[in-house]
Amino acid sequence: MAGKADIAIVGAGLVGSGWALVFARAGHTVRAYDPSAEVRDRILPWARDSLAELKAAGLLEEEPEAIFARLSVHDSLAEAVAGVSYVQESVYETVEAKSAVSLELDALIGPEVIVGSSSSGIPASRFTEGCGQRGRFLIVHPVNPPHLVPVVELVPAPWTDPEAVEMVSALMTAVGQVPVCLTREIDGFVLNRLQGVLLNEAWALYEDGIASLADIDATIAHGLGLRWSFMGPFETIDLNAPGGIADYAARLRGLYAGMVRMPPPGPWPDAVIDRAEAERRTRLPAEGLAARRAWRDAGLARLAAFKKEAFPTQ
Amino acid sequence: MAGKADIAIVGAGLVGSGWALVFARAGHTVRAYDPSAEVRDRILPWARDSLAELKAAGLLEEEPEAIFARLSVHDSLAEAVAGVSYVQESVYETVEAKSAVSLELDALIGPEVIVGSSSSGIPASRFTEGCGQRGRFLIVHPVNPPHLVPVVELVPAPWTDPEAVEMVSALMTAVGQVPVCLTREIDGFVLNRLQGVLLNEAWALYEDGIASLADIDATIAHGLGLRWSFMGPFETIDLNAPGGIADYAARLRGLYAGMVRMPPPGPWPDAVIDRAEAERRTRLPAEGLAARRAWRDAGLARLAAFKKEAFPTQ
Repeated sequence: MAGKADIAIVGAGLVGSGWALVFARAGHTVRAYDPSAEVRDRILPWARDSLAELKAAGLLEEEPEAIFARLSVHDSLAEAVAGVSYVQESVYETVEAKSAVSLELDALIGPEVIVGSSSSGIPASRFTEGCGQRGRFLIVHPVNPPHLVPVVELVPAPWTDPEAVEMVSALMTAVGQVPVCLTREIDGFVLNRLQGVLLNEAWALYEDGIASLADIDATIAHGLGLRWSFMGPFETIDLNAPGGIADYAARLRGLYAGMVRMPPPGPWPDAVIDRAEAERRTRLPAEGLAARRAWRDAGLARLAAFKKEAFPTQ
Repeated sequence: MAGKADIAIVGAGLVGSGWALVFARAGHTVRAYDPSAEVRDRILPWARDSLAELKAAGLLEEEPEAIFARLSVHDSLAEAVAGVSYVQESVYETVEAKSAVSLELDALIGPEVIVGSSSSGIPASRFTEGCGQRGRFLIVHPVNPPHLVPVVELVPAPWTDPEAVEMVSALMTAVGQVPVCLTREIDGFVLNRLQGVLLNEAWALYEDGIASLADIDATIAHGLGLRWSFMGPFETIDLNAPGGIADYAARLRGLYAGMVRMPPPGPWPDAVIDRAEAERRTRLPAEGLAARRAWRDAGLARLAAFKKEAFPTQ
């Protein structure tokens, strides 16, 4: 695995630290930086624990120590990005923070370096316009935690070099992620738009008293979510009518058009949120949230191992 | 397992046959009927093959032969429903077909029998109003195939006895399905409304040229669908903000409200469907659809076995 280009991680909270594992386990040397000394001190202990968990889940092809040895933490941005070919930036998600770090990076990197931002909602055009090498910046949006959920959305600004998108797409595939390429910026990108419409409808059904939170959750966790964990919504409908997707559309588009809400859903109402919070806290008290998150991540690790074995050609 | 009440399957195509396996593997004696002799002749050979597949996937606690021995096929509706406590009706989904079979069943059953219809979209109020025992009829909507996807939507008509809903809910839990209880009828019920909004947005993104079908599919199959295969959308957001669901709503409802399409999406346009069909057929030629469906069902069986082992307390 020697010889793989160095990667810099800039902003090393949960998202950035997950990215460090993604690159290191694929054989890259990873140089991490965070402006907070407290955050910097957490990176290596967290990585050591997480690598042990990945090993236990059967998700590592090397010994954890070999991967861990490729990680280093640096006290300055300049030191972290020295000599790297790619920077994954995951600083706090405000336009101010993203703009500031982008300008700093712009001054430090050579023209061969590409910078991907983990931004989940702010498009790159809002914080890279003033960069001299703005063609080298784009959104590279993961799902948290990136070392357990492989999809990554690549979203170019109007001025991003197409070549930079292609290079990041190839890099993501090479490190085992699944890149999705958007042709242009759109609010929420693809992933959160799909999540958003489903959440808006789920809140409206709950507001109308059609079913409990737990029952609405069950329709996904024990129903729709099963197929969706290994095929997307288009492939699902392609297989759900004898003649494929056009046949499905001919049979059912009228049904789905008839379900569109008029007027469109507004923001989730306060009173409904209060009711939902009470229902969730009855099922899971606030002091149990952290343990349930750990349960979720362990479940995602086991699911990742299962998918690798059950659906190897995907 | 002896002594479990007999169940009648009325309409034994793919959905009805799947239901037969659900009840038989849980220890019930199952009496199947279909008006078509050709369909009747397919039931037992299909059940034998499917039980072997379930056994291979680790999903049976008994030998397939013992389960198979509890299935019988009958030439008349009257014979099939004689002495049963529950009827799962899965005839062709038109108001005419559902009305006709409901009236026939109404004349044959005693007041202790409940009839659940597998209807995926037509509510029970549209085809049971004229039944003398209309309080015993409700929608019991599975996902196909019901022996591999456990969720079931229970949807009462305005005149359905609440006691009948409770009894079917208990029966479904007892046979290993996951019942979801709607308080009243609504177009598309919960499951297809959630699928519908996600499909409407996916088609609109594709129409706008934001991403390819395959890339939109990947955001679900390698992203959102992973968590959703073992927890629903509300539990997902409850764990995605430090303070739980109300904290998540406070942070992000504005973002999701900003993504609502104005005007709301109309029916999927013909030209976009043609483009999607061409893209899918490039990836999967029409002659490969049947094999890919078999791959999907084998995948669902393996996923069911994985979930049973990985998430036993759910």
